[in-house]
Amino acid sequence: MSQKPSILIYDTTLRDGTQGEGVSFSVSAKLRLAEKFDHFGIDYIEGGWPGSNPRDMAFFEKAKKLELKHAKLAAFGSTRRANTAVEEDAQIKLLLEADTPVVTIFGKTWLLHVTEVLRTTAEENLAMIEDTVRHLVKNGREVIYDAEHFFDGYKDNPEFALETLEAAQRGGASCLTLCDTNGGSQVDEVRELTEIVVKKFPDIRVGMHCHNDCGLGVAVSLVGVQAGATMVQGTMNGLGERIGNGDLTSIMPNLSLKLGYPLNSSEQMPHLRDLALFVNEMANIRNNIKAPFVGASAFVHKGGVHADAVKKVKHSYEHIEPESVGNRTRVLVSDMSGRSSILMKANDMGMDVDSKSEEMKDFLQELKQLEFRGYEYEAADASFRLLLHRFVDKKPDPFEVITYKVMDQYGDWKDDVTAEATVKIKIGDTIQHTAGEGTGPVGALDVAFRSALEPHFPSIEKVRLTDFKVRIIDGAKGAQAITRVQIESTDGQNTWGTVGASDDIIEASWEALKDSFAYKLMLDAEAKA
Amino acid sequence: MSQKPSILIYDTTLRDGTQGEGVSFSVSAKLRLAEKFDHFGIDYIEGGWPGSNPRDMAFFEKAKKLELKHAKLAAFGSTRRANTAVEEDAQIKLLLEADTPVVTIFGKTWLLHVTEVLRTTAEENLAMIEDTVRHLVKNGREVIYDAEHFFDGYKDNPEFALETLEAAQRGGASCLTLCDTNGGSQVDEVRELTEIVVKKFPDIRVGMHCHNDCGLGVAVSLVGVQAGATMVQGTMNGLGERIGNGDLTSIMPNLSLKLGYPLNSSEQMPHLRDLALFVNEMANIRNNIKAPFVGASAFVHKGGVHADAVKKVKHSYEHIEPESVGNRTRVLVSDMSGRSSILMKANDMGMDVDSKSEEMKDFLQELKQLEFRGYEYEAADASFRLLLHRFVDKKPDPFEVITYKVMDQYGDWKDDVTAEATVKIKIGDTIQHTAGEGTGPVGALDVAFRSALEPHFPSIEKVRLTDFKVRIIDGAKGAQAITRVQIESTDGQNTWGTVGASDDIIEASWEALKDSFAYKLMLDAEAKA
Repeated sequence: MSQKPSILIYDTTLRDGTQGEGVSFSVSAKLRLAEKFDHFGIDYIEGGWPGSNPRDMAFFEKAKKLELKHAKLAAFGSTRRANTAVEEDAQIKLLLEADTPVVTIFGKTWLLHVTEVLRTTAEENLAMIEDTVRHLVKNGREVIYDAEHFFDGYKDNPEFALETLEAAQRGGASCLTLCDTNGGSQVDEVRELTEIVVKKFPDIRVGMHCHNDCGLGVAVSLVGVQAGATMVQGTMNGLGERIGNGDLTSIMPNLSLKLGYPLNSSEQMPHLRDLALFVNEMANIRNNIKAPFVGASAFVHKGGVHADAVKKVKHSYEHIEPESVGNRTRVLVSDMSGRSSILMKANDMGMDVDSKSEEMKDFLQELKQLEFRGYEYEAADASFRLLLHRFVDKKPDPFEVITYKVMDQYGDWKDDVTAEATVKIKIGDTIQHTAGEGTGPVGALDVAFRSALEPHFPSIEKVRLTDFKVRIIDGAKGAQAITRVQIESTDGQNTWGTVGASDDIIEASWEALKDSFAYKLMLDAEAKA
Repeated sequence: MSQKPSILIYDTTLRDGTQGEGVSFSVSAKLRLAEKFDHFGIDYIEGGWPGSNPRDMAFFEKAKKLELKHAKLAAFGSTRRANTAVEEDAQIKLLLEADTPVVTIFGKTWLLHVTEVLRTTAEENLAMIEDTVRHLVKNGREVIYDAEHFFDGYKDNPEFALETLEAAQRGGASCLTLCDTNGGSQVDEVRELTEIVVKKFPDIRVGMHCHNDCGLGVAVSLVGVQAGATMVQGTMNGLGERIGNGDLTSIMPNLSLKLGYPLNSSEQMPHLRDLALFVNEMANIRNNIKAPFVGASAFVHKGGVHADAVKKVKHSYEHIEPESVGNRTRVLVSDMSGRSSILMKANDMGMDVDSKSEEMKDFLQELKQLEFRGYEYEAADASFRLLLHRFVDKKPDPFEVITYKVMDQYGDWKDDVTAEATVKIKIGDTIQHTAGEGTGPVGALDVAFRSALEPHFPSIEKVRLTDFKVRIIDGAKGAQAITRVQIESTDGQNTWGTVGASDDIIEASWEALKDSFAYKLMLDAEAKA
């Protein structure tokens, strides 16, 4: 078997991904994602379309300070306007101002779009492509050319479609990307047309940019590679316009693990699930348990037959090792698995618990109640550990909450401070009664709570909240719905997650906040012991 | 072009679909689904595995009274046990008791499974297949043979794999189904192996049964058909074990609309989205907005460039007519959208706006600012419309908010009421200053707000909040993060969505609540006009 060529991965989560319904990233989320993709071994990261909106402009400005180890940052834009000198084109100027090593330009392949959407001529369209690519190359950029609607355009008028690619090549593009913009192309036609282009353009890299409208986004990306393309554009978790782009979290493991193509991210594949979860978290999107390779259900066994066979021959019903993509086998059987997984989790945390003790029984009872009320501990190890601590070790909390009050108001109030809180707690024999203010009720509670704790526990000063998430569990109940709040905290050394749930959003936040401070004090006590 | 063969569709939502995590159907749901699938033109409906669980037994008992117009009901089971006479096998007896016209039997193709899981010999496995099929045929059943792990088995030992198919054919099976049980097979190998089988078994129907573990469930089903298979097994919405089965709601429109294969369900394709939603409702599963063809996002346009082109040439960015699968085009408003998608949206709402007016310019400016501050209008048509109303129509709001205050507290307070609110608003020349209490701050504000509005606007009493969602936009800012609140409301006749965003979670909720009431008053005013 001859060595297969290396495939370059081009991520457009930060640009095309944000075209998806319900997806938007803050500038700081985009920066964190770019670093994460770089770390994973992604080759190109498309950051946005400068000039299309203020957020993308702000991203490229801040991205100048990013230190990427491997990936090249790309700015995305279109060819110059019809009948305009490329040097005068405002959009092209902004592309250069983004100051990225790579610029990706899309142009029209489909004659219908040239005449009906751009309302210009075939000749001018070719000039627009060539001029734009050449101008950017002259300005020191690597230019990737995205042939929009390539497959539809080719089927309509093959000669013109190929002429647009020639124009991009003459301009000096480093890659001709065949875009299935509408996501309507089928496996066979993508294979056939990609083979034609690869054969006709032997001296330039060919890339794929596919969408999932027919449920074939992954398949046609792979088929394109098998037909000779050596770059794949896509998005993490298949984010993107309409049904989304080709999902890189499926395409990469298929290429690397199933088809044997070398990728610069191959070594990182055991962190693929982490990457997928991180992207969803940044996008504030629920994880899809049915995502191929990375979903929580990917290696789950429910049926008795399968579960039994998996026990006998591990790869009976698993097409790859779950660990090769950072996932794991799960068997859904009875509520017995509840107890054993809790014990596994406790052992994971280095706690020595007796599965058959009365305390453990009480603890499991309490846990069921809490989960029924909306608590969830998957991302709240600290709250889980505190609970075990209280029930199994019977250790008292370092403080007792007596009351809190929050007042939030709008109207005749000074700027930026809309909330005021008081907190009354008992530490040993001392009562602390403090007040605080902030831009919102949780901020005000946080301030008052710290000021009650700090005189006794100065280390609380180091605790910072690094993430704050809110989920409404049963939204159909309107303003009476149960709210789950998850907080992530750090003291600079350790990071921990806590949770609170209540039909009062303030109480849920308070519970998560209280656990965060209590956990810090538990860490301190353990460090001393 | 020669006429393509008709493809039979075999639905296993009621059996393999229920192997999915979180999926279970009541008996009555299964009966309703069977009727729905029949009505849609599905050819075979697999109802369950009699004997594997009491629910499936009850289903087949009740299904005897189902009057299906077109579909044949199938019971699913395995080959007889090793070294047991088929007439004595308890599981086979139950299959006959199910009294269905069709029985589908799965048997082992992969020698590894024969020796390691069944712990028997290759010869006995072949006898088990042939005996079982023959016995069922003798009892008047149409028997479909599912070759479990066909592709893995063939790659391991092609001769043995083909011998198992021969055994099923000798027994009298009507169809040999090639199962990619682990979902690990790639497009090329499925094509190649299916072609081999179709060539070797010219006198018997060949079927496909694929899973989505590589994200290729739809692709390999289609490729199997293109290689000569004429039956496709799958599930609605891709329900099923692990990542799920081949999704019939993608496979059917691809076969019918994209590839031109006749299906008995072709005429029903404009009801495909209804079918998909019905299945989710029966399974109590959230609709996947990103489901190809049938998802709410399938024909959605967000980016300004696309929205603009869609207006000019409808099929520019739509690979099929949305109506052909019962879906529709939607335009979303976002910070990427240009003027044109806003205009389309306004037109959608029946508003007549002048794209070039000063008011429109101000409106777009304000919209960009609001979106930058965390507002998002995709699910908040009512807030968007109110904004247009304020800026373009220059209509004053029916009330003006002067102040609100909320107090939320824990501790010495009576049960179930933890929050108290006051609201002061101006309606015309009247000041209304009211108070309310609730289990949380938003509930308390809701009560006080209504009591301020209702004396002037009695119809507010009808407004109910049907959904309440909270998103933290930039969680890394901890308690100071921007919160976006989305509320869905109804007055029994209309349903509308509103949004609020702020670094104060109460203020964000208030904004969404305020728009909800303001929108109701706008609807009332329009109804009167």
